[in-house]
Amino acid sequence: MRTVDDLQYNGLKIIQDRDGFRFGMDAVLLANLAPVNGVKKALDLGCGNGIVPILLAGKRGVEEVFGIDINEKEVEMAKESVKINGLSGVKIIAGDLRNIQDYFEYESFDLVTANPPYLRVQTGDMSPNPMRAAARHEIYCTLKDVLNAAFKVLRSGGSLFMVHRTERLAEVLGECRNSRLEPKSLYMVYPRINDRPNLFLVRCVKCGSPDMIVERPIIIYNSEGNYTEEYLRIYYGGEGD
Amino acid sequence: MRTVDDLQYNGLKIIQDRDGFRFGMDAVLLANLAPVNGVKKALDLGCGNGIVPILLAGKRGVEEVFGIDINEKEVEMAKESVKINGLSGVKIIAGDLRNIQDYFEYESFDLVTANPPYLRVQTGDMSPNPMRAAARHEIYCTLKDVLNAAFKVLRSGGSLFMVHRTERLAEVLGECRNSRLEPKSLYMVYPRINDRPNLFLVRCVKCGSPDMIVERPIIIYNSEGNYTEEYLRIYYGGEGD
Repeated sequence: MRTVDDLQYNGLKIIQDRDGFRFGMDAVLLANLAPVNGVKKALDLGCGNGIVPILLAGKRGVEEVFGIDINEKEVEMAKESVKINGLSGVKIIAGDLRNIQDYFEYESFDLVTANPPYLRVQTGDMSPNPMRAAARHEIYCTLKDVLNAAFKVLRSGGSLFMVHRTERLAEVLGECRNSRLEPKSLYMVYPRINDRPNLFLVRCVKCGSPDMIVERPIIIYNSEGNYTEEYLRIYYGGEGD
Repeated sequence: MRTVDDLQYNGLKIIQDRDGFRFGMDAVLLANLAPVNGVKKALDLGCGNGIVPILLAGKRGVEEVFGIDINEKEVEMAKESVKINGLSGVKIIAGDLRNIQDYFEYESFDLVTANPPYLRVQTGDMSPNPMRAAARHEIYCTLKDVLNAAFKVLRSGGSLFMVHRTERLAEVLGECRNSRLEPKSLYMVYPRINDRPNLFLVRCVKCGSPDMIVERPIIIYNSEGNYTEEYLRIYYGGEGD
């Protein structure tokens, strides 16, 4: 059972499986805050239903955007979404990012984005729905698989932009550095101003020098439980260049 | 030229050199948020004028607190401060933390605190005052020296609690992990709610398991430029157990 949802920008739409993986705030933040300035060619690792490639191309103006996902059903839906949006610059490929060199040339991308599965296989309850399980748990790729793939296809000086859960902040930043993807800027995402942050987004530069900027906090809801102006600006505006 | 300053708690005082290193908000946060629950024996690496050991013992109630610093003039002042406060549980030692095993037994501490120099030797302007320069720049110890010393003297399961600058967040978290000091909780410190954070405090557990908590943001000033209630509670109360 599928739905067609409006992306609230220029008539962009996306097809989603009602019971499978449906995009969330993390994908919205990833696509809207991705550093696209000067980016000609981008790749989304584990693109699922194609939400990030579609926004990168249709909203953020990146000319050529690839998406790869191991789940063929998701890839089919993503391709259909690309078609109904008429985005000729987006190409979605079914494939395993652990063998990224089989699909793409080394050092050929300016930007790689990733909204990887957040949970190690040993942790958390696994969804009985295989699409949801693969999106949530590191069944088909671990954090290191994602970093290895990004390192291979990024040009030197290119950026990996990734969203992940704060529980794994130290591990993500440490493994990025160990993979020679140097964290250069970090957004912490707070549901409300007095909450613990639950998500972060990090931009890493391939072979970058040390030292980074932690950006101003991103706060999603105000005290009345409505979206903050800042989040609405990110969602509707496409900030972050 | 020396001053005797009041620490705003129970008559505690500290002697400081007017032109040398004077304690700042980072030391106050470090001492007041240090995880002292169940801690019997603590060590402050690079203790300077003794601000952190004095607060850990005199305010936070840690029975036995050691401080070590390479600067003999600072150590003399710290010893005097300990004496005027009548803190019999605090011992300050002049020594080089790169040879920590010469002064302390392996795996003998429950808690190690550190407010290390923030700047690599190649970066930033170096102070002409040698005490200030050593407190600010990694002249006598690098980040790795601090982590190596902490690892040696901490018991397994003991905590390193450290304050550092956000520019070096990824490096600090990564190097802690590489030193088998696993980051378990992190405080981000924001001067004002809409500012970028400039400091962070991290608690690492020796040989701890992965995954961490990022705590609620610590905000120092409100929009009128006064201390927030939260900061005043930390400063006067000694939260964080």
